Amino acid sequence: MRMYDLITKKKRGEELSESEIYEFIGGYTRGEIPDYQVSALMMAIYFRGMTDAETAAMTMAMAQSGDTVDLSEFGALTVDKHSTGGVGDKTTPVIAPIVATLGCKVAKMSGRGLGHTGGTVDKLESFPGYKTSMDSEEFFDCVRRCGMAVIGQSGNLAPADKKLYALRDVTATVDSIPLITASVMSKKLAAGSHSIVLDVKYGSGGFMKTPEDAEKLARGMVEIGKRCGRNIAALITSMDIPLGFGIGNSIEIKEAIEVLSGRGPEDLRTVCISLATEMASLSLGLEREEARGAVLDAIESGRALAKMKEWIGAQGGDAAFAEDTSLFPLAEFERQVTAPTDGYIYSMDAERVGIASVVLGAGRMTKDDEIDHSAGIILAKKTGDRVKKGEVIATLYTNREAKLDEAEREVLGAIRFSDNEPEMPALIYKTIR
Amino acid sequence: MRMYDLITKKKRGEELSESEIYEFIGGYTRGEIPDYQVSALMMAIYFRGMTDAETAAMTMAMAQSGDTVDLSEFGALTVDKHSTGGVGDKTTPVIAPIVATLGCKVAKMSGRGLGHTGGTVDKLESFPGYKTSMDSEEFFDCVRRCGMAVIGQSGNLAPADKKLYALRDVTATVDSIPLITASVMSKKLAAGSHSIVLDVKYGSGGFMKTPEDAEKLARGMVEIGKRCGRNIAALITSMDIPLGFGIGNSIEIKEAIEVLSGRGPEDLRTVCISLATEMASLSLGLEREEARGAVLDAIESGRALAKMKEWIGAQGGDAAFAEDTSLFPLAEFERQVTAPTDGYIYSMDAERVGIASVVLGAGRMTKDDEIDHSAGIILAKKTGDRVKKGEVIATLYTNREAKLDEAEREVLGAIRFSDNEPEMPALIYKTIR
Repeated sequence: MRMYDLITKKKRGEELSESEIYEFIGGYTRGEIPDYQVSALMMAIYFRGMTDAETAAMTMAMAQSGDTVDLSEFGALTVDKHSTGGVGDKTTPVIAPIVATLGCKVAKMSGRGLGHTGGTVDKLESFPGYKTSMDSEEFFDCVRRCGMAVIGQSGNLAPADKKLYALRDVTATVDSIPLITASVMSKKLAAGSHSIVLDVKYGSGGFMKTPEDAEKLARGMVEIGKRCGRNIAALITSMDIPLGFGIGNSIEIKEAIEVLSGRGPEDLRTVCISLATEMASLSLGLEREEARGAVLDAIESGRALAKMKEWIGAQGGDAAFAEDTSLFPLAEFERQVTAPTDGYIYSMDAERVGIASVVLGAGRMTKDDEIDHSAGIILAKKTGDRVKKGEVIATLYTNREAKLDEAEREVLGAIRFSDNEPEMPALIYKTIR
Repeated sequence: MRMYDLITKKKRGEELSESEIYEFIGGYTRGEIPDYQVSALMMAIYFRGMTDAETAAMTMAMAQSGDTVDLSEFGALTVDKHSTGGVGDKTTPVIAPIVATLGCKVAKMSGRGLGHTGGTVDKLESFPGYKTSMDSEEFFDCVRRCGMAVIGQSGNLAPADKKLYALRDVTATVDSIPLITASVMSKKLAAGSHSIVLDVKYGSGGFMKTPEDAEKLARGMVEIGKRCGRNIAALITSMDIPLGFGIGNSIEIKEAIEVLSGRGPEDLRTVCISLATEMASLSLGLEREEARGAVLDAIESGRALAKMKEWIGAQGGDAAFAEDTSLFPLAEFERQVTAPTDGYIYSMDAERVGIASVVLGAGRMTKDDEIDHSAGIILAKKTGDRVKKGEVIATLYTNREAKLDEAEREVLGAIRFSDNEPEMPALIYKTIR
């Protein structure tokens, strides 16, 4: 294989063979193919696309480029979830305990936040003592004993994806559906779960701006997951407005506990129940209605909340915080953001709200920024709500008093007011199985 | 300017501004922009193209990236010629003396051969003593005294093009018309002549395989030349079969001398007269018919051949070889290639014939290969000729006896025989002014 010939083939719109793709991914991971040839190929793929066979081969090649987690001791019960990223997305700490009570095995590696989107691992660190880093034996032990464990990315999973993503990020070749698919799915395959449920976001705070694009991505990922022998389904959910009312680490954990307690915001509750239902249905082989009943029962009976406490404790965290959420410290300074006018909240740019939370200290703009777990935003109103001038829309929490003005401007700038009631986007646009 | 934004803009099909292009070319030449971003941009340009304004800006930016030759002392009389490369193309040593006798000033830098195409500088070195390398003062002096000089590429002309071409060559982004245009025209602009005549080849031995593609390239280059303030015209000529009968350095020089003596192969003579006519017309401001008359007279009167001798002598070469071409040594071994069947020569792949000449020692496959000036091929038959089985089609000359079999196979493999007479491609497809 000459890399030059691969670029030429793709440039002309021809299909690359499985062995060509394996050799390319292997050669690039080993440092034998220069970045400048790979970026040219990525741009050619951006324009020409990839067939399902090509995408599947690339996914497999990247999944096999480093360590893979062997979860075979748990049989077909392992289930993973992946969200394409959003603002205020605290579904993992809700649904993992729910499905673990039903017998699923959740051996999950989650990411940290960057830019306007938060990360599950950061959120879980709001529990004092919670260990997001464990060696493989501890991790497996926790899954065996408790049915679940959630840690940060560890080991050398899909190094080809890491290298390729870094290159795509600086060569404007991120926004290609087959490349996104291969990137996401290679990590999920390497992480080893037998069933996978995807939460593909659309809207201002999601990666895909329209439901149609999100559906294309979701269908692509489901197809590739199946080709690679996994049980897989995808929900396409709205991220036009933040999910729930809270944005920020401990603020979101408190809201997750609310949902596990049978309360919490309706949109968050709906998305969590739907995702948990798919996960239970796929991994336990239940009919959807049956799975849904089991999920609701896990919440109402209190077993899911009890599972959360068990899990947090098993990973070294202080489970008392899940019992009494007032233990989570609140940031020192707060400000109420009020409506500058009467009218409907016509739209709310989730990405800008996410950026406001980063300004307050809840996230990072670069990898090395420190996170303040007590900072964030609690919305009082969301898109579709009618407000009066002076009414509180949101409360900001921070330990960086000087940043309150900037964050307030960002939140107000994210909102469009109107005399007309907006049409609300479907919270769950579609389920792809 | 962030390079990332430029790639994104081009990827979306938007037009880059002049200042963006200048900053990109400048930054890349200075080594401030990494290859992997530039190759992604090149691939985006391959797919999206460039407007004439973008191509002109890129051409100017590359022309100004290093030294430029200041020919202003010769006023508007300077004229250059560029061929997109072919097999058996010995037009420069014919037309430069012709137009120099008419008062044009030819201060020409030519290339060396690589792959299946030969280079003018290599051919001229068939004259013992001919200096292809001169300092700037000698070069200008020669043009002043003799009206012409032909040397190898010297100085730091268009270094941006050199760097960019090397990158395009390994990332499959050579075959983009705006990029080819900017590459060729930047070198021509830096070389300083006021008038430029392009010989854009089409066919099996040319860079563009169809006349339509060659026309697109020619129109683009003429448009860019005009935008950059030059007098410019382009001939689109056939390179389906080698030009003339000889391929190889001294063999081609002998054929060039034949044409200057009023004889020589008809196709070569026609192309040379047409190119010289355009050059004289552009740089002297003559009507085309008048220019053509002057060109024919320069040949018939013997003045053009006398000018060649003067020029070769002025550059240190032995002009006696132009008087008596039997002085050029012939390679030691020869072989006659004969027709394996009766029929018409239906087609002759000029590129493969060029490769056969390289096998015999007349060219180089890599930059460091040595050239044998006495090696090459003399065709006895060309496309459209009817042959009988056993009749001589070509004679091969080499000092590497062991290579005769391979070269013979290559020549025979280049030829398709048929009972049907082929349609001949137009030798001069179009002239673009």
